[in-house]
Amino acid sequence: MTFKKPTEKKIFIKGSTDDVAVPFRELTLSNDEKILLSTVEGSDPNAKAMPKIRAPWIASRGNSKEKTQLDYAKAGIITKEMEYAAIRESYKYGSDMPFTAEDVAKEVAAGRAVIPCNVNHPECEPMVIGKKFSVKVNANIGASAVSSGYDEEIAKLHQSLKFGADTVMDLSTGDGILELREAILRASPVPIGTVPVYEALERVHGDTSLLTWEVFRQVVLDQARQGVDYFTIHAGLREYLMPYAAKRVLGIVSRGGSIMASVMLRHDAENLAYDHFDELMEICREYDVALSLGDGLRPGGICDACDKAQYGELEEIGKLALRCRENGVQCFIEGPGHVPLNRVYENQDLEEKYCHDAPFYTLGPLVTDIAPGQDHITSAIGGALIAYRGTSMLCYVTPSEHLALPTAEDVKQGLITFKLAAHAADLGKGLPGAQLRDDAMSRARVEFRWYDQFALSLDPEHAYQVWKAQMPDECAHEPSFCSMCGPRFCPMRLNRRIKAKYDK
Amino acid sequence: MTFKKPTEKKIFIKGSTDDVAVPFRELTLSNDEKILLSTVEGSDPNAKAMPKIRAPWIASRGNSKEKTQLDYAKAGIITKEMEYAAIRESYKYGSDMPFTAEDVAKEVAAGRAVIPCNVNHPECEPMVIGKKFSVKVNANIGASAVSSGYDEEIAKLHQSLKFGADTVMDLSTGDGILELREAILRASPVPIGTVPVYEALERVHGDTSLLTWEVFRQVVLDQARQGVDYFTIHAGLREYLMPYAAKRVLGIVSRGGSIMASVMLRHDAENLAYDHFDELMEICREYDVALSLGDGLRPGGICDACDKAQYGELEEIGKLALRCRENGVQCFIEGPGHVPLNRVYENQDLEEKYCHDAPFYTLGPLVTDIAPGQDHITSAIGGALIAYRGTSMLCYVTPSEHLALPTAEDVKQGLITFKLAAHAADLGKGLPGAQLRDDAMSRARVEFRWYDQFALSLDPEHAYQVWKAQMPDECAHEPSFCSMCGPRFCPMRLNRRIKAKYDK
Repeated sequence: MTFKKPTEKKIFIKGSTDDVAVPFRELTLSNDEKILLSTVEGSDPNAKAMPKIRAPWIASRGNSKEKTQLDYAKAGIITKEMEYAAIRESYKYGSDMPFTAEDVAKEVAAGRAVIPCNVNHPECEPMVIGKKFSVKVNANIGASAVSSGYDEEIAKLHQSLKFGADTVMDLSTGDGILELREAILRASPVPIGTVPVYEALERVHGDTSLLTWEVFRQVVLDQARQGVDYFTIHAGLREYLMPYAAKRVLGIVSRGGSIMASVMLRHDAENLAYDHFDELMEICREYDVALSLGDGLRPGGICDACDKAQYGELEEIGKLALRCRENGVQCFIEGPGHVPLNRVYENQDLEEKYCHDAPFYTLGPLVTDIAPGQDHITSAIGGALIAYRGTSMLCYVTPSEHLALPTAEDVKQGLITFKLAAHAADLGKGLPGAQLRDDAMSRARVEFRWYDQFALSLDPEHAYQVWKAQMPDECAHEPSFCSMCGPRFCPMRLNRRIKAKYDK
Repeated sequence: MTFKKPTEKKIFIKGSTDDVAVPFRELTLSNDEKILLSTVEGSDPNAKAMPKIRAPWIASRGNSKEKTQLDYAKAGIITKEMEYAAIRESYKYGSDMPFTAEDVAKEVAAGRAVIPCNVNHPECEPMVIGKKFSVKVNANIGASAVSSGYDEEIAKLHQSLKFGADTVMDLSTGDGILELREAILRASPVPIGTVPVYEALERVHGDTSLLTWEVFRQVVLDQARQGVDYFTIHAGLREYLMPYAAKRVLGIVSRGGSIMASVMLRHDAENLAYDHFDELMEICREYDVALSLGDGLRPGGICDACDKAQYGELEEIGKLALRCRENGVQCFIEGPGHVPLNRVYENQDLEEKYCHDAPFYTLGPLVTDIAPGQDHITSAIGGALIAYRGTSMLCYVTPSEHLALPTAEDVKQGLITFKLAAHAADLGKGLPGAQLRDDAMSRARVEFRWYDQFALSLDPEHAYQVWKAQMPDECAHEPSFCSMCGPRFCPMRLNRRIKAKYDK
């Protein structure tokens, strides 16, 4: 057998018009089998400027009375964004066409799916978040006052894109967050989310007594104009829920939620985002910013999971979700946090009930508290399970959660871990074509096509290194054994004889 | 506040007599809170010889007609092993006493639990494997002809003990496996399992035509005499199941199963372990070796999961389990493998049904095939879920699964990952006291007791290193902030104010 390595090239799958051209990585295995893998265009870290693929689409819509993807979907209009997202979703798992633009429009119209794409983020390659579609993964990046800087965060953005982040949240605090966010937006083909109250707190130099609605509103408006695709806003954290939070061991652990609570305490007032929710929606609708309704009261430990604070806030959020839907603002719902395995499903089910089937976007959940340093794993366990039950997007958790800000290596580890959790959920949900890559891997295993196995894996370079470290040099080219069993007896070789005798 | 670090000491909890003394690590946190953690005595790598704690117990039983823990349990006799295991189980999660020796005896008598403890492994500190008890984790070690040697494997044993392996399987192949196993047995306070057919194949120099029942029987007898606590024997892989295996993409991936199948092919005969099962049970009963009824037809990829080969073999194994139970031989059941999330519960449920509630012992299952290099995580997801449903012991999977033999570092990663999965399952099952350590962690978090957090974590040194890397040096002593949010705004500090106002 001639030794042949798999190859890869970028291809574009076009929609009904030439300007809808969705990039994919086409992998050709050593046996000429082909498999498509998702990618984003313009994620090359050396690229000077990102293509503004949506600019003509947005311009062509001019001063339409529809503003958001939700508006268009409700009006029965199929946008380029919907078509783009449908192609992306369909070919992610093989060459069938399970999802049409109409399918996407239907889900968006019903509020069961969201396409985060600010009109001022023309570089954004549209993607859809919803239970019917593949499970998405968000990567958090962002500098803090103590750690990390501009170059480091841009490097994390590129790392996120390389390892398949579907959206990226910029959680920067400290100085220079505006400039950093501008750079991130202009370099990002995936939707960018933020927590505006972080910048609001910076603008008042950390003094919550100065953090008024006017300050908050201006931040939201500035960020919407800048092109942020979704905002986490903790508007469901109502004042009457505070006594429940006060009874907890860990109280409030959401940073945004706790800033909001701090403002409420300082002013002895209701949540300003709740009080001004109509005005917030107005800004979001104008720029088509999706609202990620934040769970300021998410539990920070198993001890606080599923309590009145958490579920009470979820009910409040559900009411806000309905208002968003009525007002043409796309929204999804943020979820926990720390939840034991026996209550994971309950969280998904209550979210759907209270929040009228708006997409759920969870942080894990982490199924135990005792593994700092390994919380990408504790959260991937809960994440895979809740995504299988219906959560649309998982926020990654990195190995440094609870200990430090993620490094670029942590970003990679977090993404690989959550991409596998999301894929496991897609397999469990039975998404059409989801198993194609797994099956290609199985065939490559049985035929000792090692380099095909590496190419098909979520982290090819790493898989190769682990394998190579134990292989004798002379065997590096397609050996018909591996270090696990050695050359003498190999289960894989036996199977040929079993097939010959029994599979007639 | 004076800065105080947590301390740790080894204590012994005694049973009804002084010779039952179970070691624990007693952690005293900086606020004088105490918490017990499991450990094994004699795991010090520098120790010259392991204490033979069971020697007097075994001697005192003399020539009793009861041979195994199952015999004793059926006869209503409480052994020291049961008492020891009950104490260990009870104090693992706090200072209550949820399990009595009678509870353990009852589960063992019913065949729902197993205490693997060969009469010739007096160094073994008894532990119980069963659905009612905490989820256990097995670590595989072992040299192969291509990779790894004696010292390396002993180092892996110590690594396994350090990171909490409840049992260890020695899967060595190649030369010198007898000497290596002897060293492992004499150095191990945890039960040691093997797959005897590996050594049988070595004895015939890889020539399956020479692998007869006589050869196999002699290996089993020799290993039983040596002190192996449990044997994986693939006796359920009947000849009539071969055509189902032949139809698979991956065929047979279990190494032991495929050796057995190879012998069957070569001799055109039924499975020799099946044919001679009575004689096997006789040897196992004589030395109280537990049988781990192996799933030679476990699926090796999502594509082969839950097929007729797998479930047909499980039914066969169930019949053998009943024969074991009737004959006083302790047994448990091995399970998959690769299984998608939507079929994980079904595997546990069918095992209980077919195998009359004998303990289930699974390898993962891995919930996707596309993450070689990260298969400790794909399998921990399936493992946590199936253990929550009722699996009694998880066989760890290391990051190098499918690629190479595990290194000592892989052993550590595999164990940490599976200890957290097992603990997540225990929490989900609601085992009494299981949440104590999580809650201690939450309290340490809210009070910024960083060193207590490290001490409470599954990998203290690693957690400390991640945290330390980003902390300014001057803040290393109990800072009231961390690198994630920086000193300006910290959710944890806010909570004190919320409590003051709302928790009256």
